Amino acid sequence: MKLAILGAGDVGRSVADLAGEYGHDVVALADSSHAAVDPDGIAVESALERKVGGEAVGTADPEDVFDTDYDVLVEATPTTLGDAEPGFSHVQRALEADRHAVLANKGPVAERYEELRALEAESAGSIRFEATVGGAIPILSTIEDSTPEAVTAVRGVLNGTANFILTRMAAEGLDYEHVLAEAQDLGVAEADPTFDVDGTDAALKFVILANVLSDGGFSLEDATVEGIQNIPGSALDLAAEDGRTIRLIGEATRDGVRVGPRLVPENGALAVTGTRNIVQIETRHAGSLHTSGRGAGGPETATAVLSDVGRLPPL
Amino acid sequence: MKLAILGAGDVGRSVADLAGEYGHDVVALADSSHAAVDPDGIAVESALERKVGGEAVGTADPEDVFDTDYDVLVEATPTTLGDAEPGFSHVQRALEADRHAVLANKGPVAERYEELRALEAESAGSIRFEATVGGAIPILSTIEDSTPEAVTAVRGVLNGTANFILTRMAAEGLDYEHVLAEAQDLGVAEADPTFDVDGTDAALKFVILANVLSDGGFSLEDATVEGIQNIPGSALDLAAEDGRTIRLIGEATRDGVRVGPRLVPENGALAVTGTRNIVQIETRHAGSLHTSGRGAGGPETATAVLSDVGRLPPL
Repeated sequence: MKLAILGAGDVGRSVADLAGEYGHDVVALADSSHAAVDPDGIAVESALERKVGGEAVGTADPEDVFDTDYDVLVEATPTTLGDAEPGFSHVQRALEADRHAVLANKGPVAERYEELRALEAESAGSIRFEATVGGAIPILSTIEDSTPEAVTAVRGVLNGTANFILTRMAAEGLDYEHVLAEAQDLGVAEADPTFDVDGTDAALKFVILANVLSDGGFSLEDATVEGIQNIPGSALDLAAEDGRTIRLIGEATRDGVRVGPRLVPENGALAVTGTRNIVQIETRHAGSLHTSGRGAGGPETATAVLSDVGRLPPL
Repeated sequence: MKLAILGAGDVGRSVADLAGEYGHDVVALADSSHAAVDPDGIAVESALERKVGGEAVGTADPEDVFDTDYDVLVEATPTTLGDAEPGFSHVQRALEADRHAVLANKGPVAERYEELRALEAESAGSIRFEATVGGAIPILSTIEDSTPEAVTAVRGVLNGTANFILTRMAAEGLDYEHVLAEAQDLGVAEADPTFDVDGTDAALKFVILANVLSDGGFSLEDATVEGIQNIPGSALDLAAEDGRTIRLIGEATRDGVRVGPRLVPENGALAVTGTRNIVQIETRHAGSLHTSGRGAGGPETATAVLSDVGRLPPL
């Protein structure tokens, strides 16, 4: 398939880098100001070198991407809340042109799910968004194959930054501020870590899951969310005395979404360590399926995008 | 889709029972001597009642199934080794009739993989076999979506009977014979438990995985297999002193298949308890994906069959 990639951050660049290995061509790669566009396939390596080297990714205008012949628009621009723009409009234009759209951007799927599905219904193209929930971990495709009706709940750890911080606080007896600084040094937390530590990032993912289970009906404002910024080191010590630890756990059911710090058994499935993510998918007939892995990262998220591309029907 | 189910054991009956929930019709259900056949859909509940009540599942001959109009043949007859008959011929006839085949029967996929793929290439129908490896756990579809080339190894626990026995031996300090008897009373081990305890069942599954990774080339005789029958209770006590336990672990890579008892960290991912299964899928770009769940059981395995049906292209 011919991929037009919007967004040249970690995810967009990794999709461009790995596309060939999965048998696809990259006909466009755009950031917010420039684009590399070539209907016969762009020179990916050169484009990536330019971008990483601080130069313009290409000489075209991002708007030119929509005039190119592509099969799949990959939406990998930064997540925005509320109206989820410009991501939502990007996907809208692809669907209105009867093209597919694969999202790594959580905004449109969390905040305007029903509108996306309505556009999809009118289009020859389809939307897929595995990469929006749990990076490399095949959560949405597992739910899709089980059929959403057979899934009663999805629970787990879907933010690696918060999980890393809690893991280190418990392991070293250090306080939150100290470990956050360590996480930023390591690149595990961003300079502005707000969405990771206040639970918003996890909540967006569980809102997406609730939308999948119920075929819409939820947005971020419907979620009950509490972050990890107020957990004292002493709380983890106390938990440890009882064979427990604390993790930022989210849950999505047909009734709604809750994210917050919870006590979990120290050696239990939910006590994943470091930046790893895990979900427990509760099903009607097959008990509880657990899937864990790397929930974030350029290549990891790119594999989810390319898995989605592989599952699209031909146009 | 119209399903023709061969095999009326736990799996076949569960597929018949759940098919309606997934939007499919059952046009035939056959055991080794009789069949219920109706091109407009059989009365599933009555057929199941008859079978479970010890009566003939229907008044037709199993051969009549192949004269019926069906879309998907579900092969859920008992696993046989070597020539994998009669399962192999059942699948062959479906493919030669340009119909799909979904297998829960490991025999044909483990022992005659290349022949199946050759028949599939000549057919309008496709084969899928998620249910042959790990029951409800979506292992093959995860590998398929990642693309087999991106997977370097698959490792884990894929036999619940052996895992249950080892879990109980460690927990209670009992010896193998005692726990095996308990497992048989609970229905976790069969009257003839040989294939579960000598590692053959796990080996068949890892052979199937090796065939998927390498697109053929392996059968059961290529696997190095050791079972759990000779593990003394003292071995587990000794392991526990070191923070370890013993599990029957299998591994499939492009080089081959090995199954045998291994020491694993007591609280590590591979130390699943009871009858649960787990696999670690090692990938080139996305690290290690872990998936665990119920590896066996009628409804559990049926959900894997029905997930496969959902992924078949229209005929």
